[in-house]
Amino acid sequence: MTVQKPGIPRGTRDFGPFEMSKRNFIFDTIKGIFQKHGYAQIETPAMENLDTLLGKYGDEGDKLLFKVLNSGDFMNGIEPLDFQTAGSNAASLLICEKGLRYDLTVPFARYVVQHQHEIEFPFKRYQIQPVWRADKPQKGRYREFYQCDADVIGSNSMLNETNLIQIVDEVFQKLGVRVTIKLNNRKILAGIADYIGQPEKITDITAALDKLEKIGIEAVNQELQVKGISVQGIYKLEPLFAISGTSKDKLDQLKKILQGSTSGIRGIEEASELINLLEALQLKSNCEIDISLARGLNYYTGTIIEVSALDAEIGSVCGGGRYDDLTGIFGLKDISGVGISFGADRIYDVMDQLKLFPDESVTSVKVLFVNFGETEGRYCLGLLSTLLSAGISAELYPDPAKMKKQLSYASARHIQYVVLVGENEMKEGLLTVKNMFTGEQVKVKPEELVRLVNGKR
Amino acid sequence: MTVQKPGIPRGTRDFGPFEMSKRNFIFDTIKGIFQKHGYAQIETPAMENLDTLLGKYGDEGDKLLFKVLNSGDFMNGIEPLDFQTAGSNAASLLICEKGLRYDLTVPFARYVVQHQHEIEFPFKRYQIQPVWRADKPQKGRYREFYQCDADVIGSNSMLNETNLIQIVDEVFQKLGVRVTIKLNNRKILAGIADYIGQPEKITDITAALDKLEKIGIEAVNQELQVKGISVQGIYKLEPLFAISGTSKDKLDQLKKILQGSTSGIRGIEEASELINLLEALQLKSNCEIDISLARGLNYYTGTIIEVSALDAEIGSVCGGGRYDDLTGIFGLKDISGVGISFGADRIYDVMDQLKLFPDESVTSVKVLFVNFGETEGRYCLGLLSTLLSAGISAELYPDPAKMKKQLSYASARHIQYVVLVGENEMKEGLLTVKNMFTGEQVKVKPEELVRLVNGKR
Repeated sequence: MTVQKPGIPRGTRDFGPFEMSKRNFIFDTIKGIFQKHGYAQIETPAMENLDTLLGKYGDEGDKLLFKVLNSGDFMNGIEPLDFQTAGSNAASLLICEKGLRYDLTVPFARYVVQHQHEIEFPFKRYQIQPVWRADKPQKGRYREFYQCDADVIGSNSMLNETNLIQIVDEVFQKLGVRVTIKLNNRKILAGIADYIGQPEKITDITAALDKLEKIGIEAVNQELQVKGISVQGIYKLEPLFAISGTSKDKLDQLKKILQGSTSGIRGIEEASELINLLEALQLKSNCEIDISLARGLNYYTGTIIEVSALDAEIGSVCGGGRYDDLTGIFGLKDISGVGISFGADRIYDVMDQLKLFPDESVTSVKVLFVNFGETEGRYCLGLLSTLLSAGISAELYPDPAKMKKQLSYASARHIQYVVLVGENEMKEGLLTVKNMFTGEQVKVKPEELVRLVNGKR
Repeated sequence: MTVQKPGIPRGTRDFGPFEMSKRNFIFDTIKGIFQKHGYAQIETPAMENLDTLLGKYGDEGDKLLFKVLNSGDFMNGIEPLDFQTAGSNAASLLICEKGLRYDLTVPFARYVVQHQHEIEFPFKRYQIQPVWRADKPQKGRYREFYQCDADVIGSNSMLNETNLIQIVDEVFQKLGVRVTIKLNNRKILAGIADYIGQPEKITDITAALDKLEKIGIEAVNQELQVKGISVQGIYKLEPLFAISGTSKDKLDQLKKILQGSTSGIRGIEEASELINLLEALQLKSNCEIDISLARGLNYYTGTIIEVSALDAEIGSVCGGGRYDDLTGIFGLKDISGVGISFGADRIYDVMDQLKLFPDESVTSVKVLFVNFGETEGRYCLGLLSTLLSAGISAELYPDPAKMKKQLSYASARHIQYVVLVGENEMKEGLLTVKNMFTGEQVKVKPEELVRLVNGKR
């Protein structure tokens, strides 16, 4: 057998022990809070039928789907000539029926329709699973990454948005990441397009608005002109840029401007209701209306949510919104949903950069028994069992290796206590315990060990 | 858009809230125990390069790999004629570079070699991730399922086997599943083949031995004959079938029979050392030498472990063993490893069948606030926050739906307490709390709610 140089596919990652501890700290925190708020976990298969996935993410998305080759004699029954002339894209559909999950939203919609008779609505579900995209890999963009979604489906109530925002606030509070939560409503954006008399230009208008903070009003106006917004329209937009104050102030000013648009007024009402409900909660994070926020315009129909870290320039760490007809394509009409998605990779980067991971999240076991040989090792097995039964994580080094090697193993793994039981200790009936964090070393009786490593003397 | 009938690929599964809670109960239990014993979690990508996977699982295994179509214009640069004449198997390698993980062992070996300079040996890792196999789906056999592995790599010490068996014992103890742990050693099996003078027949001999319990001695002898074992060989095997008593007794009898085989004697020594070490632990589960145990003969080189549930006929629920040169194929020679793998799906089936899942594993939130309308709902938000801050899982029903609907939602989700705050309650400054498990209903002051749902009056 020839030796292979080991590697993994481009854009994918291995996660080692320390990365996993930190990632788990994030996932466990989010999971715990989802559960406390009554969201139930589901999991769907990594592979979905291609007809479930195709056409749901636009043409660009279709190209980014990883397709799974039919197993067995996949060319059986396919005319070679047909295959040849089809071109790669059409040909792929002749030999692949399945694809890897591209996000968690479409599988969730498929799940809801498929299991609608087993589900108790409103259905509050969360899902934390990897997704795959054949994107060009680059810094911070991977071909395999986890999504971390919570959605409520089957209820129009603004209490759902309220609850999700409360969750966002609680998660980042608990992770120690300072954030600002920006809110908007797709109907307000539609109202703005109505108001300037070019409702068909909603995407261009909001895309330009979205850049206001970055490029300034002059450049925004120029972009609007290029996109075919009338001079009069651009003129009418100006008061919108001047909107300021608290969320309520902003909505009041907006109400006057958009009074002619039914959609605009409805959006303002919804946003006001949400702001009112949020007041009852006393969130820790800053939370405000931002009418330039325009994410997910293709699918969101009501509230739009975006969360950014305050102390790191990394873009959005969480986002979401309401979508009115997610399950329609699978045959279940008029079921409204609202959801949020945490960007675990970005949150990880922010926390790493700001050194926010607590020490406990990267320790392995608390106690290591040094191995001095067969007799001593066997003696330690009993002590080890005692610690484990007391719920203390502990291990015995498996080989009677050199002391130096065993100690360096302990410190590489951030183990706090090392217990030494050599010939002398066994004779005296005592254990030597070294605190690797402080350097302190003491002798104790075996029955005192649990108390000692629990931090009590 | 046409409506699609939703479905998932054959052999894959959706896991709904209740299944997930129960699955998590198993995974969390195993994870907690792995961690307590110092095993560190890693994760590897779902897709591996095909050259990492191919040739590691035998010809049959190669056929069961799910291959991922190269993204983009995958036919670019491929001669149609070459492709046509290649046949499906060779053709697949022209258009696929990646495949889905088939197990966790090969990716782990690849990981160890790739990251050898970052790893502190001995390396104790665990990994819980799905794997994919293009097997024919049937009852209990899926195309996507989780594996749950712990391995120690870089240490020859029998203390590692001891530790893994201790983990097995602790896991099933904690899950409430009664098991028996059977042990053997590949070198003993080789010794038996030596002893009858047909070392090349080790696989046939052990395969026949393995069936002893099921089909009886007559049928085993017949099978041995068919497989080309000499009459003299079959005669010589007979005393082996008669071996009985405690593990130590069995090893003593075996020692006499296999005294001429170096390998056999070495195997007996290893097994004796393991049995001695295990004695120091006082395991709760029965644990014994079984020389007919012959799993994983293709890769195990020392200890072999198999765990069966006592109260369900379902085959093995956990297994493992020592392999001497797992990483050799990737260029890192002579690194010995030992590992175990828990069969989560089978454990689930056993626990479900024997009703071993605790009630807490299938409850969602503890408290539901009934929604009587806007004013009442808003009032409940404050109470909800109080409960959540106290670490109690709770939710407010998002819509002012009919009482009956809200209560049936609560009972479908196994919610214990329902809090009713209507107009009357708001006037009185009291809450009505209904215990859905007992039917009991009481009125309490808002500040008494936390105590009440925590089970204290």
